[in-house]
Amino acid sequence: MDMSNRIQGLTGGGSDGWDVFYKARRMITAGVGVTELTIGEHDIRTDQSILDAMHRSASGGHTGYAMVPGTDALRDAVAARLTARTGVHTTRDNVMVTPGGQSALFSAHHALCDEGDVALYCDPYYATYPGTVRSVGAVPRAVPCLPENAFQPTFSDIAAKSAGAKSLLVNTPNNPTGVVYSRDTVEGIARACCEYDMWCISDEVYDTQVWDGTHISPRTLDGMAERTLVVGSMSKSHAMTGSRIGWIVGPEDVIANLITLATHTTYGVPGYIQDAAVFALGEGLALEEKVAEPFRRRRAIGQNILAEQNVVGLVPSEGAMYMMLDVRSTGLSGEDFADRLLEAHHIAVMPGESFGAAAAGHVRVAMTVEDSTFEASLKTLVGFAKEIQP
Amino acid sequence: MDMSNRIQGLTGGGSDGWDVFYKARRMITAGVGVTELTIGEHDIRTDQSILDAMHRSASGGHTGYAMVPGTDALRDAVAARLTARTGVHTTRDNVMVTPGGQSALFSAHHALCDEGDVALYCDPYYATYPGTVRSVGAVPRAVPCLPENAFQPTFSDIAAKSAGAKSLLVNTPNNPTGVVYSRDTVEGIARACCEYDMWCISDEVYDTQVWDGTHISPRTLDGMAERTLVVGSMSKSHAMTGSRIGWIVGPEDVIANLITLATHTTYGVPGYIQDAAVFALGEGLALEEKVAEPFRRRRAIGQNILAEQNVVGLVPSEGAMYMMLDVRSTGLSGEDFADRLLEAHHIAVMPGESFGAAAAGHVRVAMTVEDSTFEASLKTLVGFAKEIQP
Repeated sequence: MDMSNRIQGLTGGGSDGWDVFYKARRMITAGVGVTELTIGEHDIRTDQSILDAMHRSASGGHTGYAMVPGTDALRDAVAARLTARTGVHTTRDNVMVTPGGQSALFSAHHALCDEGDVALYCDPYYATYPGTVRSVGAVPRAVPCLPENAFQPTFSDIAAKSAGAKSLLVNTPNNPTGVVYSRDTVEGIARACCEYDMWCISDEVYDTQVWDGTHISPRTLDGMAERTLVVGSMSKSHAMTGSRIGWIVGPEDVIANLITLATHTTYGVPGYIQDAAVFALGEGLALEEKVAEPFRRRRAIGQNILAEQNVVGLVPSEGAMYMMLDVRSTGLSGEDFADRLLEAHHIAVMPGESFGAAAAGHVRVAMTVEDSTFEASLKTLVGFAKEIQP
Repeated sequence: MDMSNRIQGLTGGGSDGWDVFYKARRMITAGVGVTELTIGEHDIRTDQSILDAMHRSASGGHTGYAMVPGTDALRDAVAARLTARTGVHTTRDNVMVTPGGQSALFSAHHALCDEGDVALYCDPYYATYPGTVRSVGAVPRAVPCLPENAFQPTFSDIAAKSAGAKSLLVNTPNNPTGVVYSRDTVEGIARACCEYDMWCISDEVYDTQVWDGTHISPRTLDGMAERTLVVGSMSKSHAMTGSRIGWIVGPEDVIANLITLATHTTYGVPGYIQDAAVFALGEGLALEEKVAEPFRRRRAIGQNILAEQNVVGLVPSEGAMYMMLDVRSTGLSGEDFADRLLEAHHIAVMPGESFGAAAAGHVRVAMTVEDSTFEASLKTLVGFAKEIQP
């Protein structure tokens, strides 16, 4: 029996880039002690106060269908937060709650791209981006971002790929690079979107994890609010990855259509999780900083280690829970470096190639293990690079 | 800025069929006491024992990303349940967990239908069916089911629409009609799927609510397991509507592709909700019968009231939480009848036309209010029909 061509082509063929990750998992299953610096997930759990709020809501009776667009309370809280953080007036009607950021990325592309439309995304990229574009029948086209520009897309980088494109997906603070887009970069994005009449889909799920510089949302620039969909989530900011709760913010008419889409794809998000999210947002900056603090600390540890040598390069580490390391001086690809590091020292990192061609010769290190393990692992990684340097 | 044609055409134009429902809600907001017999949602909440299981799981640390296909425990529990209920050997690899039945319906169509493919569904139908087909870019085609056949599709009904179709969506026990498909009907469905080489998508979310006859899954018939995707859910069986937890059961290769799709559309379902579902399924038939019992009781009440008169006809009430009433003797459409009943007696029911052309001249009554209110409302409805009969 034939399935759809669309679902069969989702991965675009080729490796899924997770070979090292799965090899590490197999070693762990076989009893080998492996330090995993692979996954973008906190080493803390969701705060108990948030879980207690969820239980109060559920036990209080909020177990029936919630409104498909999201509860008024959560939509209002997200709108107020965006208004406060960006200065762009945002109301409930600009917000739809989604079951996580990935669902928001999918829905945003569904709303903008028809079968065969070209959708741009910046390379290096978060692993699901090209498949998300394909899942709505559109055609992904990469915008290569150069290591010499710290992987920030320039206007020219984007313009070179924009002919005939319907949308541009950007991500700042960036996974996998840890870079925060500069004002110049965001202005280039806005200029390209306006000149080539493209939508901007702005993935801002790391917006509470900024170590250096300032997060600037493309939606705040002139002419951009009407052509930008912002993807947000509680996953990274509040260590609520497993709760699958996020949102899309955009023009009212797009949100209205997205609500119709959600009626046919998800039928809303659990009300008690939305109540938990309202509670968590209500705790304000204190809770967000508590969740971000371990990464800030480990980033300082990592910077010190890397400053003492010149074999492994560090892509400017400005935000998110990752450091991107340049290992080209070893003469190895990121894949080979990661594979040999895993074999020799039982430390698992992600090859840059897993995130696109632009990050070749790099590895991504997730700062998601406790400080002393992180420090020891990074020292071992640097020592290994020195050892194998030609 | 142009959105996708696909999202703009989701509703297929025309009324969404919810005019009476929204009018009732407006009356309630304005302070009018309206009895709502509209929505397919229990008048009980999710059992506290299930919510406590969820809180134990979350507080115990199951708050990180769950595996995208679903937890092993829930996939195993669903597989064991299907095997026990249907006799068809089912394993974890035949199961993917979804955030609710609607997500399963969407994903199933995505897996089978490309842009422009024709997807069949039976009319009368659950409100989201045509839009779900459109959401994957496919073309919905109705199979009209006749009131004289108690709205059960015959082989000929289906065959007349099958040329060039990729899939057939069926629903038994049926919403909106309350009919349970007979063995003859299910054999006709299987024959049509095999002769016209169609997939079958079988929505069985009401499989624990059978008052008369036996639920037969199309997947159990010869040659059907390899061409059937079963949609299941905890919403109706365990009063967990708001928790958005369901599944798709089907051939292993389809499930493998559906997991790739889920990676790009939802990234899994909260682990603590899955643990709650495992707990609930572990409670076995006792809990399912507790949830179903009020509808069984009210269905008996309704049958008694309707047996005493011959103005309002009752479509065989065999399952699910609805009764479908034939009000054609009043000379009114279902829409006019529902509207006038709401105006005159502040009782809200759903017009049959909301569920497709085949149910014209009918109204659907949800048995979702406590017994005495249900009884009084139904008596009022019958009295009203008598009064306005020409």
